[in-house]
Amino acid sequence: MEKFELDILGCGSATPTTLHNPSSQVLNVRDKLFMIDCGESTQLQLRRSRLRFGRLNRIFISHLHGDHCFGLIGLISTLGLLGRTGDLYIHSVAGLEEILRPEINFFCKDSPFQVKIEIFDPKKSEIIYDDRSVTVKTIPLFHRVPCAGFLFTEKQKEAHLIPDMIKFYNIPVKELVKIKQGADFVTEDGKVIPHSLLTKPAEPARSYAYCSDTAYSEKVVPIIEGVDLLYHEATFADEDAARAASTGHSTARQAAQVALQANVKKLMLGHFSARYTDNRILLNEAKEVFSNTMLANEGLREKL
Amino acid sequence: MEKFELDILGCGSATPTTLHNPSSQVLNVRDKLFMIDCGESTQLQLRRSRLRFGRLNRIFISHLHGDHCFGLIGLISTLGLLGRTGDLYIHSVAGLEEILRPEINFFCKDSPFQVKIEIFDPKKSEIIYDDRSVTVKTIPLFHRVPCAGFLFTEKQKEAHLIPDMIKFYNIPVKELVKIKQGADFVTEDGKVIPHSLLTKPAEPARSYAYCSDTAYSEKVVPIIEGVDLLYHEATFADEDAARAASTGHSTARQAAQVALQANVKKLMLGHFSARYTDNRILLNEAKEVFSNTMLANEGLREKL
Repeated sequence: MEKFELDILGCGSATPTTLHNPSSQVLNVRDKLFMIDCGESTQLQLRRSRLRFGRLNRIFISHLHGDHCFGLIGLISTLGLLGRTGDLYIHSVAGLEEILRPEINFFCKDSPFQVKIEIFDPKKSEIIYDDRSVTVKTIPLFHRVPCAGFLFTEKQKEAHLIPDMIKFYNIPVKELVKIKQGADFVTEDGKVIPHSLLTKPAEPARSYAYCSDTAYSEKVVPIIEGVDLLYHEATFADEDAARAASTGHSTARQAAQVALQANVKKLMLGHFSARYTDNRILLNEAKEVFSNTMLANEGLREKL
Repeated sequence: MEKFELDILGCGSATPTTLHNPSSQVLNVRDKLFMIDCGESTQLQLRRSRLRFGRLNRIFISHLHGDHCFGLIGLISTLGLLGRTGDLYIHSVAGLEEILRPEINFFCKDSPFQVKIEIFDPKKSEIIYDDRSVTVKTIPLFHRVPCAGFLFTEKQKEAHLIPDMIKFYNIPVKELVKIKQGADFVTEDGKVIPHSLLTKPAEPARSYAYCSDTAYSEKVVPIIEGVDLLYHEATFADEDAARAASTGHSTARQAAQVALQANVKKLMLGHFSARYTDNRILLNEAKEVFSNTMLANEGLREKL
């Protein structure tokens, strides 16, 4: 099956620890890499992940707090040293251009590629990227600064032809594209061979939602309904619920409530506060609400 | 003995590797921390080193290539989160203010301390910092952009009083400060007790020189003459000497030639190119010229 897998490069929060890097992850969709957030040290984590820098397609920045974007200039600089020539698109809330462009102009004067920054409105849920494999839609979030998550939805693939049946009915090559896309086949004597007899259904399209950073909100539920994997921030445990509310963050239990209401298949917790040396407290509190929950961790690769 | 020790936080060069972080190190002078260069991930390396963020005194930036300064904004941001209140002084070549200040203004609006950037002229060797423990002098270097190294010279400490002798001659407390500073003692009946009889000499003042990034140049030799430890960049091996020259870097052998001519006590090689997976090639080539040579490495603490 073609790849649709998530690499966690960093799942800590603002204060650095020896356990967790700041936010960054890469979704590999059929060998195109989509980066989500880019905290400091992301390029080092990317190196450790053994993902190929050359396959980096686009970068999506949820919001302009340092732990989600301080790694951009280092990564861009290194991509230049590595000889990248294709434009690099960064999708972000407003403000990144003013911050990042002077740095690029100063430090990456000789860079062989252009950085194109595309601004989205984090208050709306809208499609900001679309290609033949995947669609990316924003998820309005509720943080101290303008912030959006991202919903990645794989495009439905075509059905697989069953070679023996194609041979049996002696179907000409020019018909095959249509059959893969859903057409039936009509023989020379007018007999209809249904699509379902000639093909095996394609694997179901996969989906991934990233919700970080955000206070608890049910408004995200209809947007992320039924996704295969939801990464939701879980900065705090129950005991720090008041702090979560005042800082625009969620508890692990709240993340699980969102997962439950949205009927997602699996929940991954991340964006851990530096105050917990053992994040199992977060896992356990979330599991009381939504059992199919796991903890993010640096180096983790989750295949969907 | 009071501390005068060097922690290596990063000793790689521009392209990140899984072996080495970009340049940063901390000289601990009597528990005040002086940071030299601040590549990306420096704050994470500082955390790993277990040095205390609160003891960070000043930062010295050799030049404005990203692998020497991309970590500043993350470190500054974190110092704010940790509640630092004392001004943070950064010594740098011209240009840093224009790059860093907009980032500080955007990301660290609520920071409880001020960042003060002091610009030095990298073409001159001059004292840019001085306190009761240490003097910092610039070392003009020869790179593709304006660049200086730093010479840290410990202040000579006072002699140690020998308690038994002080008691024997019944020396009044008010005389002790002068005696520690070098005075003799004259008894009531006019007898001169020489300083050398009343004191043990202080430990010799220690010195450390940082030379990175730079092409080979003998001009640094008189400035760093006789230092206890010289950190000299050794980006390349002999086989890449042409590349060293064309990019404004040194080979390990050239670093050793500088160490030999400057009659330093010990040489530490750093700023390793990503192309060598085993830096012993650099160590061996340097040792052919200057035997008391060692390799820098992340996590290394060298006590002087």
